[in-house]
Amino acid sequence: MYAPITAHLYPVILAGGVGSRLWPRSRKSTPKQFLDLLGDGRSMLQHAYDRVEPLVSPSQMLVITNAEYVSDVAAQLPDLPAENIIAEPVARGSAAAIGLAAIHLARRDPDAIMAVLTADHLMRRPETLRQVLVAAAELAQRGELVTLGIRPSHPETGYGYIEMGETLGVFNHMPAQRVNRFLEKPDLATAQAFVDAGNYAWNSGMFIWRVDTILAEFEQQMPPLHHTLQGLRPALGTDAEADAFAQFWMPLTDHSTIDYGVMEGAKSVAVFPADLGWDDIGSWAALLAILEKNTDGNAAQARHVQVDSRNNLIFSAERLIAAVGLEDMIIVDTPDAVLVMPAERAQDVKKVISQLREQGLAHYLD
Amino acid sequence: MYAPITAHLYPVILAGGVGSRLWPRSRKSTPKQFLDLLGDGRSMLQHAYDRVEPLVSPSQMLVITNAEYVSDVAAQLPDLPAENIIAEPVARGSAAAIGLAAIHLARRDPDAIMAVLTADHLMRRPETLRQVLVAAAELAQRGELVTLGIRPSHPETGYGYIEMGETLGVFNHMPAQRVNRFLEKPDLATAQAFVDAGNYAWNSGMFIWRVDTILAEFEQQMPPLHHTLQGLRPALGTDAEADAFAQFWMPLTDHSTIDYGVMEGAKSVAVFPADLGWDDIGSWAALLAILEKNTDGNAAQARHVQVDSRNNLIFSAERLIAAVGLEDMIIVDTPDAVLVMPAERAQDVKKVISQLREQGLAHYLD
Repeated sequence: MYAPITAHLYPVILAGGVGSRLWPRSRKSTPKQFLDLLGDGRSMLQHAYDRVEPLVSPSQMLVITNAEYVSDVAAQLPDLPAENIIAEPVARGSAAAIGLAAIHLARRDPDAIMAVLTADHLMRRPETLRQVLVAAAELAQRGELVTLGIRPSHPETGYGYIEMGETLGVFNHMPAQRVNRFLEKPDLATAQAFVDAGNYAWNSGMFIWRVDTILAEFEQQMPPLHHTLQGLRPALGTDAEADAFAQFWMPLTDHSTIDYGVMEGAKSVAVFPADLGWDDIGSWAALLAILEKNTDGNAAQARHVQVDSRNNLIFSAERLIAAVGLEDMIIVDTPDAVLVMPAERAQDVKKVISQLREQGLAHYLD
Repeated sequence: MYAPITAHLYPVILAGGVGSRLWPRSRKSTPKQFLDLLGDGRSMLQHAYDRVEPLVSPSQMLVITNAEYVSDVAAQLPDLPAENIIAEPVARGSAAAIGLAAIHLARRDPDAIMAVLTADHLMRRPETLRQVLVAAAELAQRGELVTLGIRPSHPETGYGYIEMGETLGVFNHMPAQRVNRFLEKPDLATAQAFVDAGNYAWNSGMFIWRVDTILAEFEQQMPPLHHTLQGLRPALGTDAEADAFAQFWMPLTDHSTIDYGVMEGAKSVAVFPADLGWDDIGSWAALLAILEKNTDGNAAQARHVQVDSRNNLIFSAERLIAAVGLEDMIIVDTPDAVLVMPAERAQDVKKVISQLREQGLAHYLD
């Protein structure tokens, strides 16, 4: 009898983002992944943990984050062993973050399969995620780079796409397909063509591969990162770790994403198109769209009163919000800043952030 | 040579209102008259004082207010003698407030002419107010009840109207007219008819009369109030004052306005229609309409950033407000509550207040 594949499966939750599109709630000091956006008492990071917690022991779970968030991660995930929180002194892109997790895992288990997961996305069907992770681990075992694709519900221009080719087989009752290519964020016509064609999936940013497979890819496709990882590897967990980060991590100038640095150039990539009930909650409007409405027709996480107001997102930790005659509006109240805008303008939060920087008000982003 | 009529002129500023239409800035603890709504560093009460201060000595000025606001009045008007702040233990309507001021003045000057002024209205032409107050005092000297009328700029349904009759003469270069009758708030068609007719003025709530004239009117038209005032009068300024208030003021059940209690039934009433640049700032929309706009097109008393937003009223004492894609909106931020509504819904603040009461949240009104 063989051990189940999950014995070697290590979920690695990437939790280093800053989530500026959800300003003013999401801040440098408390980014999106640490917020309870759904109003259910669990942060996005806690949900990411909860989703895979039935699959593996906490000792197999890694969270990789910026050094300044280590205490937040530890506080939010009390069952996670402290040594499983991997700190980046500074962010160097998702490829480097994944590389750092990979060398940690390589020390622990030469047969480790890592599942790179996101900390700030919604998944309404966590059981499907667990099923596809096992399926993907089986395929990854064979040396494939495996990615999870999301079947597109609409011609979204804010995501990258994956063109899917031939069927590779069925694993744990889930069909896998060859990835023909990764595509950058398309324009609307192109996105519509992708949706119509049927063989495209959204790139979810979730990946499953053997640690030795991805390290070999870094060696081949990203030599500077390979050099960094080789320098760091012997120093991990020793007194020399800080010096090694100073010597090898800090000077790394290639801050590529894993998509650009590895996936787009890799030869043997597979995808499981999966129906995860996935949403990246990439804006306040996206959150408004997914949140259940109160009996008064508004998505409110706030003490509030309303007159003739419906389908508004009303967020406030402390203050009472009074809404009169509002529809499809976003109101986000925080201790030092209040954002008010129509939901359809949600992408313009980035313009607010630019203005804050230009006007010397960048401390409102902290 | 006679003393100028202003030697006997006593401005009485009514400052007991609660100004709930400007919630959440205007509160029971800090009503409208104590707020710097214009952003010029002076409260509405201070502006009311400033307008008549060139006309009379501070010792001739009275402010009548609720007992709980006496310290606010004293703090905002440091030149006003403490004994000139008249405290009502509880509000009993404007007729009673005016009666209380009248018996105070009767003790000081048997020839006193009182000018009842509002504490929470805007007047852009204070020099015209001073001119008409002198004119009105001359006419009041003769025993007339004199009121100041505002020439209507539009068919406002939120004000009472005065129908003006024959011309009584010119006083201090200002023409006075007989008042035919006072009219309650009209519907729109009626208001339009008033504006078209040309001989109607808005009732400003400002009145000028001899103290003995108004006390005689109370005796004739409001016997219960007369009884109260007769009971209080000998006790004013003595140790018996508190008892007298308990005995005569507290039980007063007729809480009439001066309009209903006296003016509508009085026989000899005159009006000076005056162009005072008057506005009652009766709503957030009214304030938005009168405030100068910033260079970015918004009326903002707040640290704020905006994207594609104009003609909004943005009020915030502390927090930064970020407005995206907003037009003709009201945003009022206070330490414990935030109001957001289109300007055209400004009258519905009263519905918010009703809801707060119904939902056990009345402390947001305090």
